Amino acid sequence: MTDVGIDGIEVRTGKLKLDLAETFAPEKGEEPGKYTKGLGLFASSLPDVYEDIVTMAANASHRLMERKGLEPEDIGRIDVATESAFDNSKPVSTYVAGCLEQVYDGDFHHANKGERKFACISGTQALDDAYNWIRAGRNRGRKALVIATDTALYARDDPGEATQGAGAVAMLIDEDPDVVAFSTEQGYGSADETDFLKPNQQFPSVDGKRSVQVYLARMREALEDFEAAGGDTHPDNFAFIPFHTPFPGMVRKAAGLGYRHCIRGTDVEEELAGEIGRQPRREAFDSEEEYFEAVKEYTDALTETDTYTEWYEQTIDPTLDISREVGNWYTGSVHIARASGLKRALEEGRAVTGKKLLVGSYGSGAQAEIHAETIVEGWESEIEALNIDEQIEARYDLSFEEYEEIHDVHNHEAETDIEPRTTPEGEFAFDGWGRMGERKYTYVE
Amino acid sequence: MTDVGIDGIEVRTGKLKLDLAETFAPEKGEEPGKYTKGLGLFASSLPDVYEDIVTMAANASHRLMERKGLEPEDIGRIDVATESAFDNSKPVSTYVAGCLEQVYDGDFHHANKGERKFACISGTQALDDAYNWIRAGRNRGRKALVIATDTALYARDDPGEATQGAGAVAMLIDEDPDVVAFSTEQGYGSADETDFLKPNQQFPSVDGKRSVQVYLARMREALEDFEAAGGDTHPDNFAFIPFHTPFPGMVRKAAGLGYRHCIRGTDVEEELAGEIGRQPRREAFDSEEEYFEAVKEYTDALTETDTYTEWYEQTIDPTLDISREVGNWYTGSVHIARASGLKRALEEGRAVTGKKLLVGSYGSGAQAEIHAETIVEGWESEIEALNIDEQIEARYDLSFEEYEEIHDVHNHEAETDIEPRTTPEGEFAFDGWGRMGERKYTYVE
Repeated sequence: MTDVGIDGIEVRTGKLKLDLAETFAPEKGEEPGKYTKGLGLFASSLPDVYEDIVTMAANASHRLMERKGLEPEDIGRIDVATESAFDNSKPVSTYVAGCLEQVYDGDFHHANKGERKFACISGTQALDDAYNWIRAGRNRGRKALVIATDTALYARDDPGEATQGAGAVAMLIDEDPDVVAFSTEQGYGSADETDFLKPNQQFPSVDGKRSVQVYLARMREALEDFEAAGGDTHPDNFAFIPFHTPFPGMVRKAAGLGYRHCIRGTDVEEELAGEIGRQPRREAFDSEEEYFEAVKEYTDALTETDTYTEWYEQTIDPTLDISREVGNWYTGSVHIARASGLKRALEEGRAVTGKKLLVGSYGSGAQAEIHAETIVEGWESEIEALNIDEQIEARYDLSFEEYEEIHDVHNHEAETDIEPRTTPEGEFAFDGWGRMGERKYTYVE
Repeated sequence: MTDVGIDGIEVRTGKLKLDLAETFAPEKGEEPGKYTKGLGLFASSLPDVYEDIVTMAANASHRLMERKGLEPEDIGRIDVATESAFDNSKPVSTYVAGCLEQVYDGDFHHANKGERKFACISGTQALDDAYNWIRAGRNRGRKALVIATDTALYARDDPGEATQGAGAVAMLIDEDPDVVAFSTEQGYGSADETDFLKPNQQFPSVDGKRSVQVYLARMREALEDFEAAGGDTHPDNFAFIPFHTPFPGMVRKAAGLGYRHCIRGTDVEEELAGEIGRQPRREAFDSEEEYFEAVKEYTDALTETDTYTEWYEQTIDPTLDISREVGNWYTGSVHIARASGLKRALEEGRAVTGKKLLVGSYGSGAQAEIHAETIVEGWESEIEALNIDEQIEARYDLSFEEYEEIHDVHNHEAETDIEPRTTPEGEFAFDGWGRMGERKYTYVE
């Protein structure tokens, strides 16, 4: 069976930067370490005045199409995943196609355009749909363009404010891919939860503590389901394990619990038994409470071992490099984690071709999905082509006052009119509203 | 290759009725014929106080699961299509699963839940995703539940007010289906249009005239793409052609144009040549304008022929039976058109097993999709199980004043508190808001 997976990736960050240690922390009267160590975040990316989920998506897609030498006719499907939509009917994918049609002779009139919403997990759901479409033999030789794009803003002074971010990840899905091939096996963990939601509102209502619990609970369920589907989860079998990364501190927690789950009954547990004992077994305890306490103690000890630390540094830490600098991109987050891991592998000259990724996606509300990917030949040149470091470096560093203004610019309920901090060049830019309230875009040479 | 398609359907209408001829027309100072003949609509369904897109979806799904003898574990995927979502992050499918889990012992924790948005076409997109998921071999023997649910309200006094409606269609997608099997072939016609949109607003902004043009243009493109994919479109080869039905008058227009397109160069054109001549060919005219004028004249003459009238009465008219009584259900609309056609076939004892449907879906913004379906053995008992006639009959007939109140109840920006007009019994009902602004539901015995 021919491989199907990601043939190319492009990452587009918002062009403004809010420095959490230098700019945000002093204003909040907090130590920088609260953000840089606690959350594991250094900065947030934010969109300039002329940027939004459409421009970021279209700019990432444009670079991807140019780099891969594609014409609109090569694309049979454009799916956008977002939880920042600004229209309750018309999908963002139609706006993105409209932008791209400004710079190509051809059109996307025979491409199926769609939009998925489920908090931060819908980017992965859209990838899965694209994979299935090709496997079902319906693509007629064409590829799918899947774009995860979000402006993750919180109400001012919300505890989530420090985890904001904005950016898009465009991915080309095709047969014989050049980056990763997807596993058929998938695992799901999903329940009707109210950890994070946006009831008729732009900014989220968040129960932070509950959200962390739900993330971990659903991820565990998804892992068990993935195992039931026949998926391998031995932690040493994966080059990287990209997780949804609302902030790197969340992934630190998830990694410890996931590792413990996966080494249960393996050689790794056996080898560590002399040092920290074996994992508690439910039957050895009188109550759930005592058992959970013992599991917690074991996990704490486990994450202090050299074995775990080495594994974490190799397998998890590299997936957080980009997130640390840009914040939470919601739907794009797990996809920058994948790109981030592969980027580190390239930088360190690690021979990961043929090796696997275990990908843990999550969306509040809530659902986790786990699947595996195989890194395929060609990945080095695809990852080398990314210019995300240059984009991160080139961002305009906002003062706190400028940050306050730009937050208002992107707040659907605030009215404000300020000058952009950067100048658009060779990119799609927001260009005002049309007569029906639609947003308009133009390509700036 | 095993067939994949719709194994069961349930339709749930909002429990209130606005009679267009008796109640709406007099208040607007219009002749009833404006609605009953012009639009082809007799009434709109509206949700009672305790109904919404979740209750209608959950009630349709519950009846479907009961009738098919299913447990939650049999379902691997729940996708909701809607353009009436009340949360920008948490998908309606999680609420629906939460409702169903109140009445089943099992749960849907390992089912992939999703939400698609693209005006009225996303129900069909979700069906396609489910088909692809099964064809890709990822379903592990489980079925998909696809639900199209909407409350189609317009601002008061908007020209679209007469075309309102509310209801849900739940469909079970499976191998060896009992209703219809889907074609692999699909045709798409899609462009970045501003015919109908909801920019950060609940009620649509509509350019009515443009919307009709775009519907027809995109449908034509989709038909051509379907033909390019190898799909048969000879109009006599289909038992029914269910279209997206914003109002039956729109389908009358689309059917005439579609028929003309499809008979071009066929035996039908030949047989009609003596009566109305052959179709104009572009090369015979000096200008586009003259050509279009000639095409229009030909189409007008065509739709007056007995051949066309018989075809329309057999193939199109039966698909409009339910719409006429309930109005526009947005994402559900094309799926009640399918159900409506099959229902008429059952009532008239037509032997349609093995015969085909050509299904024309549409969403503003804009995209049309055409695919074929084969009616399979078992369809009669599935259609016989529908209780939509009883539901339509049992609706509470609103006075105009009551209609005004209920419109406010479902308007996210109005505050109102009125008593329901009906009494919930053996169904899911809206039960107030939770602390995070989430909507809560309960099963009323």
